[in-house]
Amino acid sequence: IYTETVLSNKPRNVLILLADDGGFELGVYRNKICQTPNIDALARRSLIFNNAFSSVSSCSPSRAALLTGTPSHQNGMYGLHHGVHHFNSFDNVTSLPNLLREHGIYTGIIGKKHVGPQSVYKFDFEQTEENNHINQVGRNITHMKLLARKFLDEANKQNKPFFLYVGFHDPHRCGHSEPQWGPFCERFGSGEPGAGLIPDWKPWYYQWDEVQLPYHVQDTEAARRDIAAQYTTMSRLDQGVALMLQELEAAGHKDDTLVMYTSDNGIPFPSGRTNFYDAGLREPLLISSPEPTARKNEVSGAMVSLLDIMPTVLDWFGIKKEQEISNNIWGDDQPKSLLPILEKEPPHSDQEAVFASQTHHEITMYYPMRAVRTRRYKLIHNLNYGMPFPIDQDLYVSPTFQDILNRTRSKQPLPWYKTLKQYYYRPQWELYDLKMDPEEINNLHGKPSLEQVESTLRERLLEWQRSTRDPWLCSPDAVMERGDSSAVCMSLDNGLSHYHPR
Amino acid sequence: IYTETVLSNKPRNVLILLADDGGFELGVYRNKICQTPNIDALARRSLIFNNAFSSVSSCSPSRAALLTGTPSHQNGMYGLHHGVHHFNSFDNVTSLPNLLREHGIYTGIIGKKHVGPQSVYKFDFEQTEENNHINQVGRNITHMKLLARKFLDEANKQNKPFFLYVGFHDPHRCGHSEPQWGPFCERFGSGEPGAGLIPDWKPWYYQWDEVQLPYHVQDTEAARRDIAAQYTTMSRLDQGVALMLQELEAAGHKDDTLVMYTSDNGIPFPSGRTNFYDAGLREPLLISSPEPTARKNEVSGAMVSLLDIMPTVLDWFGIKKEQEISNNIWGDDQPKSLLPILEKEPPHSDQEAVFASQTHHEITMYYPMRAVRTRRYKLIHNLNYGMPFPIDQDLYVSPTFQDILNRTRSKQPLPWYKTLKQYYYRPQWELYDLKMDPEEINNLHGKPSLEQVESTLRERLLEWQRSTRDPWLCSPDAVMERGDSSAVCMSLDNGLSHYHPR
Ligand SMILES: [Ca+2]
Ligand SMILES: [Ca+2]
Ligand SMILES: [Mg+2]
Ligand SMILES: [Mg+2]
Repeated sequence: IYTETVLSNKPRNVLILLADDGGFELGVYRNKICQTPNIDALARRSLIFNNAFSSVSSCSPSRAALLTGTPSHQNGMYGLHHGVHHFNSFDNVTSLPNLLREHGIYTGIIGKKHVGPQSVYKFDFEQTEENNHINQVGRNITHMKLLARKFLDEANKQNKPFFLYVGFHDPHRCGHSEPQWGPFCERFGSGEPGAGLIPDWKPWYYQWDEVQLPYHVQDTEAARRDIAAQYTTMSRLDQGVALMLQELEAAGHKDDTLVMYTSDNGIPFPSGRTNFYDAGLREPLLISSPEPTARKNEVSGAMVSLLDIMPTVLDWFGIKKEQEISNNIWGDDQPKSLLPILEKEPPHSDQEAVFASQTHHEITMYYPMRAVRTRRYKLIHNLNYGMPFPIDQDLYVSPTFQDILNRTRSKQPLPWYKTLKQYYYRPQWELYDLKMDPEEINNLHGKPSLEQVESTLRERLLEWQRSTRDPWLCSPDAVMERGDSSAVCMSLDNGLSHYHPR
Repeated sequence: IYTETVLSNKPRNVLILLADDGGFELGVYRNKICQTPNIDALARRSLIFNNAFSSVSSCSPSRAALLTGTPSHQNGMYGLHHGVHHFNSFDNVTSLPNLLREHGIYTGIIGKKHVGPQSVYKFDFEQTEENNHINQVGRNITHMKLLARKFLDEANKQNKPFFLYVGFHDPHRCGHSEPQWGPFCERFGSGEPGAGLIPDWKPWYYQWDEVQLPYHVQDTEAARRDIAAQYTTMSRLDQGVALMLQELEAAGHKDDTLVMYTSDNGIPFPSGRTNFYDAGLREPLLISSPEPTARKNEVSGAMVSLLDIMPTVLDWFGIKKEQEISNNIWGDDQPKSLLPILEKEPPHSDQEAVFASQTHHEITMYYPMRAVRTRRYKLIHNLNYGMPFPIDQDLYVSPTFQDILNRTRSKQPLPWYKTLKQYYYRPQWELYDLKMDPEEINNLHGKPSLEQVESTLRERLLEWQRSTRDPWLCSPDAVMERGDSSAVCMSLDNGLSHYHPR
């Protein structure tokens, strides 16, 4: 569904600023403590989305989804790309950079890539962890600034429209990989003794007792100190955003470039990253359009998905991509351009929905989940519910998670909204009324008064899985076989209850 | 450990004949009904291994293990390679064909490849499912014969030693992918109306009531008819083996070629393929050496692994590969050349062991298992034991499995050695005394009199996992973190019991 917005004839470019595990530690999203003046300034020139969601709460799968407009189960990026995890998208997947290159757009990536194979995600200009240390291209904002300058120079020289994707590694943790820099790499380049100096970064520091605690993090000194470190790292991201926007302006592209700021997945705290609770899926999203008619410093309540970014960028460049033919009765459940929303708030409806699909994070962390979220309700299907929810290496060593473990082991008070046991053991189905229960604590699955709501959500989720060719469509109680024209679920009679209409 | 056998100076070649899901439906292995005169003839010129085991009971992982000498978790082939499964070995893995090519040996593959990436598994001559229909290169034995002739011509022309790997697709099922040919593709090229004709194949047919039923298949007409079809397909494989050996002789290489016959995994029946019971892991293995001193028409009881094939081939070609340094106290748990066994039966010991590691088969079938098997005992660790054992699409539609399902559903008699429920639900640990209980029915896990046996097996299995860098070393109850020099398992306190010494 591509729109005829008021397109001027001047060149049109795109700059995507992607945070890594970034959340709502932003002034624009009403965090009163964490200071992000530069992202807030961008927000004043942007439409601010309050209901933007990732389709997956894991790094590589989220990036692959963003760059292909398809959920992880459809593009093959079932988990992390690097090391022993080794997931890769299918070789025949169409990605945004490949499609844009074909249309003569100069494409670049600076920072974290974390997707593959090379042939599927190929940019003209690549400065990533594949040819640099990730911290140099993802956290050293001075170096990143110079790389952006080089990219923009080259785009200007070639006189081509451009697409620049900046993958900040901030505010990702580094306690697992590089603990010497602190839990959030907050000492990397801070100027402290032995920490090196990033000339363009002026770190902000916070008192642990003044941070604004998210509802899903326990209220203890250890967790608060962890968040204070995250805030400090947010200052590097925030100032990095400013540098990118300065380079854009210096290159003469302030007024012809669509700028987006978002994050790949939720913050690396319990119930955040790797989870399908809102703390794991909900993302900041700012879209700043240079169109004179575009909404600025306004809030949109539209339900949107990061799967919509690919069609939005294609729409912006005027590139039409063949939509797959689908008999789906929920026709709106396909990704769509967000450009119309930049002009005018669409009517809100209870029917608007976003979808999510996750399988692995690390290769050992098999915990497939599928979810549909409307404005009011969320239905999560946990497919491997007979086993405990897995914990990633990075979260495991974090001060916050260690504090939960230690307090649980020693039976000390744990001022948290769940117990560790509840966190590990989840039922097959979770249904939440987000209006009454935004913290997703009261599972309403099976409640008679919501029977119709739940069955409609289930059918809609299955239909989405079907239309996106989900290999897990029939799991865990049936085997998928091909019927005359489409997938058929054939029961295993293994004692697990699923839901297969017809 | 490479041996100084009596090496003559003439050229030395290797021919591997690999069955797909082949079992012991062979005269040489005392099946009195299924006629395999050609494989039996090869056996009379071979050492016949009675204790050969695959390290994994799944096609791509087994082939990757065979071609690299490393278990699936070490080479990255965690499951099937094709389609949505999309597993690939790591890019830095050393494979047999790549190493042999570097040493000037002419390498070829005819038939089923099923591994990737291309760069890791590169043969000079490739006629596989990647450039043909799999049935033409894997089941049409006339076509395969001509391909072998072409390969051998080319090797002779180039005057190079050669390595030819023939991946028969027989006796794999085809009920899921191509049901028109019957459950075992037994009608493909049979000359029946509409079935086409493979000129070199003279099919053998069997009465369902005369087949020799394996202990792990139910005694019903449906299952027996399934086995009769499998037997017919064995006749195509058997005659294909004869053709390959004729081509070898015609090319003048009968007396300078090491010939091996084996299979990638157990037969596609319950407890077979995808299982770690002996019906899934134990393989036929014939090695025919042209050395005058080599044992022929003799049986070896040595415990050997298909992981030993790579070092055997390298030893045959006199290529030394650096062994990884290991502090493993079980030094013999590394792959080793089998050439010494061809000369002389080694002393048998209760300590001899083989190992197995499996994670996925299909992408949706996450059921990691690790196992160690000595002459007498087998210990299996089921990591995802909270969920039912998964069933692959190919087995699901088979007459045998459908019969089990239907009888279970309708509460008809099921003359099988297990119930479906027992088959689905397995405990975390399974310990069997194979001497007393070859059918692996009585789980002795936790039995006080076997406490020492079990704990020794557990430590040995963990040590093997550690030395082969298993990402699942700490699963499912702990997270693996890197200590100063090696992996450390840190407990999740998730209520699951594992076994971590120290
Ligand atoms: Ca991330
Ligand atoms: Ca196989
Ligand atoms: Mg691929
Ligand atoms: Mg790779």
